[in-house]
Amino acid sequence: MVKVNFTSHNKEVYCNLGDNLLEVARNENIFIDAPCNGSVSCGKCKVKLLKGKVDTEKTLHIKDEEWKQGYILACNTKVIENIEIEVPSKLSSSMYGMKIEGSDKKKDKQIFDRAKNIIETHNLDFKTNIVKTYIELDEPTLDDNISDADRLERYVRNNLGYNEIDFKLELLRNMPVIFRESNFKVTITYVKKKNKITILNLESGNTQDKLYGVAIDIGTTSVVVCLVDLYTKEVIDKASSGNAQLKYGADVIHRIIYSTKKNGLKHLNDAVIKETINPLLQSLYIRNDIHKDNVVTLVVAGNTTMSSLFLGVYTDYLRQEPFIPPFLKSPKLMGEDIGLNVNDSAYVYLAPSVASYVGGDITAGVLSAGIWASDENILFVDLGTNGEIVFGNKDYMMSCACSAGPAFEGGGISCGMRASNGAIEKVSIDKENLNPELTIIGKCDPVGICGSGIIDLICQMLLTGIIDRRGKIHKDLNNNRIRFNEHDIGEYVLAFKEEYNLENDITVNEVDIDNFIRTKGAIYSGASTLIESLGMDFSVIDKVYIAGGIGNNLNIENSILIGLLPDIEREKFNYIGNSSLVGSYLALISKDAKSKLQEIGNEMTYVELSVYPTYMDEFISACFLPHTNIEQFPTVKSLLED
Amino acid sequence: MVKVNFTSHNKEVYCNLGDNLLEVARNENIFIDAPCNGSVSCGKCKVKLLKGKVDTEKTLHIKDEEWKQGYILACNTKVIENIEIEVPSKLSSSMYGMKIEGSDKKKDKQIFDRAKNIIETHNLDFKTNIVKTYIELDEPTLDDNISDADRLERYVRNNLGYNEIDFKLELLRNMPVIFRESNFKVTITYVKKKNKITILNLESGNTQDKLYGVAIDIGTTSVVVCLVDLYTKEVIDKASSGNAQLKYGADVIHRIIYSTKKNGLKHLNDAVIKETINPLLQSLYIRNDIHKDNVVTLVVAGNTTMSSLFLGVYTDYLRQEPFIPPFLKSPKLMGEDIGLNVNDSAYVYLAPSVASYVGGDITAGVLSAGIWASDENILFVDLGTNGEIVFGNKDYMMSCACSAGPAFEGGGISCGMRASNGAIEKVSIDKENLNPELTIIGKCDPVGICGSGIIDLICQMLLTGIIDRRGKIHKDLNNNRIRFNEHDIGEYVLAFKEEYNLENDITVNEVDIDNFIRTKGAIYSGASTLIESLGMDFSVIDKVYIAGGIGNNLNIENSILIGLLPDIEREKFNYIGNSSLVGSYLALISKDAKSKLQEIGNEMTYVELSVYPTYMDEFISACFLPHTNIEQFPTVKSLLED
Repeated sequence: MVKVNFTSHNKEVYCNLGDNLLEVARNENIFIDAPCNGSVSCGKCKVKLLKGKVDTEKTLHIKDEEWKQGYILACNTKVIENIEIEVPSKLSSSMYGMKIEGSDKKKDKQIFDRAKNIIETHNLDFKTNIVKTYIELDEPTLDDNISDADRLERYVRNNLGYNEIDFKLELLRNMPVIFRESNFKVTITYVKKKNKITILNLESGNTQDKLYGVAIDIGTTSVVVCLVDLYTKEVIDKASSGNAQLKYGADVIHRIIYSTKKNGLKHLNDAVIKETINPLLQSLYIRNDIHKDNVVTLVVAGNTTMSSLFLGVYTDYLRQEPFIPPFLKSPKLMGEDIGLNVNDSAYVYLAPSVASYVGGDITAGVLSAGIWASDENILFVDLGTNGEIVFGNKDYMMSCACSAGPAFEGGGISCGMRASNGAIEKVSIDKENLNPELTIIGKCDPVGICGSGIIDLICQMLLTGIIDRRGKIHKDLNNNRIRFNEHDIGEYVLAFKEEYNLENDITVNEVDIDNFIRTKGAIYSGASTLIESLGMDFSVIDKVYIAGGIGNNLNIENSILIGLLPDIEREKFNYIGNSSLVGSYLALISKDAKSKLQEIGNEMTYVELSVYPTYMDEFISACFLPHTNIEQFPTVKSLLED
Repeated sequence: MVKVNFTSHNKEVYCNLGDNLLEVARNENIFIDAPCNGSVSCGKCKVKLLKGKVDTEKTLHIKDEEWKQGYILACNTKVIENIEIEVPSKLSSSMYGMKIEGSDKKKDKQIFDRAKNIIETHNLDFKTNIVKTYIELDEPTLDDNISDADRLERYVRNNLGYNEIDFKLELLRNMPVIFRESNFKVTITYVKKKNKITILNLESGNTQDKLYGVAIDIGTTSVVVCLVDLYTKEVIDKASSGNAQLKYGADVIHRIIYSTKKNGLKHLNDAVIKETINPLLQSLYIRNDIHKDNVVTLVVAGNTTMSSLFLGVYTDYLRQEPFIPPFLKSPKLMGEDIGLNVNDSAYVYLAPSVASYVGGDITAGVLSAGIWASDENILFVDLGTNGEIVFGNKDYMMSCACSAGPAFEGGGISCGMRASNGAIEKVSIDKENLNPELTIIGKCDPVGICGSGIIDLICQMLLTGIIDRRGKIHKDLNNNRIRFNEHDIGEYVLAFKEEYNLENDITVNEVDIDNFIRTKGAIYSGASTLIESLGMDFSVIDKVYIAGGIGNNLNIENSILIGLLPDIEREKFNYIGNSSLVGSYLALISKDAKSKLQEIGNEMTYVELSVYPTYMDEFISACFLPHTNIEQFPTVKSLLED
């Protein structure tokens, strides 16, 4: 046994000689961001060796200067003696400091109200099938000595008009004591089913006014939990954090691979339920003085992989041809089945998936976007860890998934990071001196750059002539922020370490730009292929709804300029926030909306881009700023010609 | 901490200074029989102190000679230093060596066949609603890429004609792997519900011929588990043992009291499920090469307290006026809900109870006895740890419970024991020399006397003139087997220690006899009160069915002679074995029989003896050999007058 001292966490742990450092940290719940799940390809799990020797190798991700300072990749390191390790706060905190949509309460309310409005205007009922009632039972006597369960059933038959009651064993276990401690005055929460009711909760006394539901969006990157009063239908509170599965990889593919390892599926399931959702629920309960047993219904939305891992279902065939998901529509679930920190009998409904890579987050998003009720043609783009696109109106809906990769969350970019504290979220570059002006989340020193910042940066680099339309840096610019390494790869310095309190410069290089161009090209070509498959083009679009974690700071103009979004009238674009969460919320507060959501799942058509004949050509044409065919971007053309 | 060495178990355990010795043994799963659950009233937890000192007291249960040898009551002893303890094998083995009805395979088959015959002759269907089918699914392709769950549902819709499928999460979790490892050739076990099926089990390949159910009788004293082939309806195998709850008390009252202590309910629930039923199931699986997942339906019968503890339901109000049971009819249960060692989705049905002291063992017994279908008047007597009586025919059924106490299992008798190895099960006494002839279970040295032996003994003592009709030993008998102690209490020596290899004589004294007379009086007066409540008397009885653990060795003639059973034609008496188990078996193999069982539970009338005006007089009159009014026992009268 050897000892690893994680000085940053003030934690000493023991492990076996030769253990992998990333695994050692994971086992002790020390969070080290590892987007590629330890396959030595992303270079994000960089930690600093303070003391002792390790068995490791320098990789391309580590600069000479960093190597000298002791930086190593945790995933590429074996522990061979007692060591001291510092985990940079950027890595360990990124799960918690993450910026999640909805911190702006006013805008947030607008988004929820707008969605509610769609339900109202289409005459969907704001009802759930869950009822809570205070009842007073006759106390038993020697002459009236029927059993406790029969007493309750008799009341229900005589006073509520149902023939039969049903309940979980746990409820029966406590029934005798609850009846006596309350002198047979209790509150029951139940679900009606024809002539029968299923009792979800039994409480002492009158607690009739406490009835809650929870909507959850499980993103690959972040998770948002939303507590709802089932009487008023109002969102009482929200809580969010990174998805603790991040430590097993940034994208669904890395997670699926990890799930096939020994206990991998269990680790991933525990990460999202025990380490992410349950603590978030607990914080909501404490903040709002609510008992978990009063949370009796949940709607959960996530992509197909997230839905599967949420239930602990074997996921690997999602990834292997012919890409078969284990399930699409929600199985019947109760809180207890998945170990959720809610009432054991709470109904859990998963938004239905459409295909392996178009999941419940998209069907829920489409519900909240109201495409199903729209006469207009709507293009729905979800810019999350994957990119999913839906096009349609009330008569039909087509969907596809783009292999966008995690670039919008900073993946594939050397100094990329998620939208958490220290992330550069907006950039403008001075035309004259090429100096950048940065907006940083948390108003602290910059740590890296997040999705919206990258879009701005690339756009600004293009407009200021730092890069050409292929994304290559011009060689002839004589500026101290532009430099080339020994392999002739150019980079632009966003922040010199001397400008802030940094260990290293923050830079973006040509490889990063190339990665990002492929991501934006995948989205654009996905959308155009989808619409072309109907024999139409972008001109038929009446509205574009942009959803996803990239957030409000997405600059539409800049996004069009680099060719991420089509060059159509700017007023057609709307940012609709975390539409997956909003859709879950709607299905939670309205039985009709839930049926509608299920319908969307059943009826949406899925287009598999990889087998679509023209997609590859479209994609290659889109890997240009803004596009090989500049005629598709008339306003950009005129701007660049200026 | 001090050390207790249980030499008999070769086990050293540590405990705190002052810990109760019985508790120390229980915590280590060292079984010490404690019928009164440690209330220092039964004297059965006698152990031998081999080394060290303890804080204890001599009680009336310990003879001077025993005290000198180191015998102490475990329940009355505090550990104050390191000690060595010997647990007499009689105490620790009684749970396992117990003689359970059914070891005689031929008689056993007769009993099951007789019951099956009743079902047949009344045109009840031998069907269950569980079906097992081998199916071959289409393997997925890029063109046929629906989800695994949808593929199964599509097959069911197209080939089996049901619209919808339903299953537990665990089944979905394994579905993807099972489909691939079997090349999509699987066997499903399902339950039909109108247009829908619930899938209980999914297996690779064709396992269509493996479909099993289990019937369980949970007695207060012993538990029998019966494995049934659901195709042939045959009993494949049986297993039985003592109920591990015995360590917490011999009768339901002591168990209920224990259940209110800290973790008491959990201990009792664990004792019956984890320590009794699950190991019995496991032994059946191993012996018959069966996988637990193929056990998909269970019927369980036990008295009201056993049913309640089986589910871990709070039980204490059963014991307190107005004696309210938590439930009577079975809640909906699956194997997983109660941690049974069967398929997680297996349906578990509890035979319905009628009242606090007439439980599912009686309704199941009545099902198997066929009273519900009988034109004749049938008296059903269950001689178990409690005594329950049913009287009726196909038009009505009346039931009552007698506070018989555990005398039929040897409780309340100083040398009494359960029908396990070493128990004297038959006795005859020579008229001349008053020497007994003993039949001993296991053909070993005698250890004590069990229920059937006590009946024989008292009858023989009466007939040979050792005792009078009050149960008092005649003073003027000059015989070495008869002696009186300093309090003038007489005893009869069944076995001198010199005759066998014993530490002490085995004796029965006047207090024992008195206890037993009260037990038999409770049964007799219960039956007569029940029949009188209908304005009838014993002459209307066409048949008497005797059920319960007391077993085949019950001597009917002797039982009438002492006034336990009414003095009517001997050919009317039938021993029907463990009718609770047989009834459970019938409900297991026939849907119609299960409905009938539920009907019996709903329709049987319960007579509360304690509030019945003439019951106390009847009881006092019956506390005589055979009865105060000898005219009720004409054949006994003539015999005694001889």
